[in-house]
Amino acid sequence: MNQTLPPATERHFEDYPVGAVFDLGSFSLSEDEMLGFARRYDPQTMHTDPASAAQGPFGGLIASGWHTVAALMPLIVHNFLPHGGLVSPGIDELRWLLPVRPDETLRAQGTVTEARRSRSRPDRGLVRSFVEVLNEAGEPVMTMRPMNFIRCRPESLAPGD
Amino acid sequence: MNQTLPPATERHFEDYPVGAVFDLGSFSLSEDEMLGFARRYDPQTMHTDPASAAQGPFGGLIASGWHTVAALMPLIVHNFLPHGGLVSPGIDELRWLLPVRPDETLRAQGTVTEARRSRSRPDRGLVRSFVEVLNEAGEPVMTMRPMNFIRCRPESLAPGD
Repeated sequence: MNQTLPPATERHFEDYPVGAVFDLGSFSLSEDEMLGFARRYDPQTMHTDPASAAQGPFGGLIASGWHTVAALMPLIVHNFLPHGGLVSPGIDELRWLLPVRPDETLRAQGTVTEARRSRSRPDRGLVRSFVEVLNEAGEPVMTMRPMNFIRCRPESLAPGD
Repeated sequence: MNQTLPPATERHFEDYPVGAVFDLGSFSLSEDEMLGFARRYDPQTMHTDPASAAQGPFGGLIASGWHTVAALMPLIVHNFLPHGGLVSPGIDELRWLLPVRPDETLRAQGTVTEARRSRSRPDRGLVRSFVEVLNEAGEPVMTMRPMNFIRCRPESLAPGD
């Protein structure tokens, strides 16, 4: 069952219990935006040249996988992470499973897979999650397993933390 | 010792032996480009607001980690992957180790960690690599472990492959 997070300014480590599933919202990529991103960052013809892509294995233009994950990030920033949060140490796994085409509506959800209070820095915890991006048919087009450090609620800190 | 790949149009699976290290070149990100990318794709103040970032833990603006990996991609496309190649199934690990600041010169290198001919599709192989992005002090600021399917040389195919 989907759970609801507090507003971004009030999110803390305690709001991310293992097993919680959060709806992250939806997004889409226009052909123009796909072309602009790919020509700068991922110049492969399947992403940059509609005519060449039409002759390729996908029969048309597909988004750079890096564009899909970049365009997902505003949903994660607004609908998952605390405002003014800490940096992420990284991603454990990123998978591109199906092509993403112009103007497809993609929706995303995040499931908390681990939530561990830091021993060395008890003002924060490490949250691991599994994020899925689904197409209109409900099929996963991309998944990833990010890690995020998230501050604990001030009232949960022991004296001296 | 660094090895040299053939030109992009001539690269094949056989050119990626385990242990080969390839120099991928260098890149940098201007403050303007960092702000433009982050305002669209990673709207967190450490990436979007120089004044706020100056008060934060890094004492100044830092690049979105997604921007660093996106800006690395042209080097991978031009200096590592074959031209007109196959899609990547994903990344096994992505780590952001140190902040990236405007106009830092970053250089990248890739080491082949696994090269396995596909059994189900013997016209290609799976190449796993370890890519490091180093700052001017030679410290790794980002690492990742991508997977790429790469076509075999036509003359290496058995009849019927």
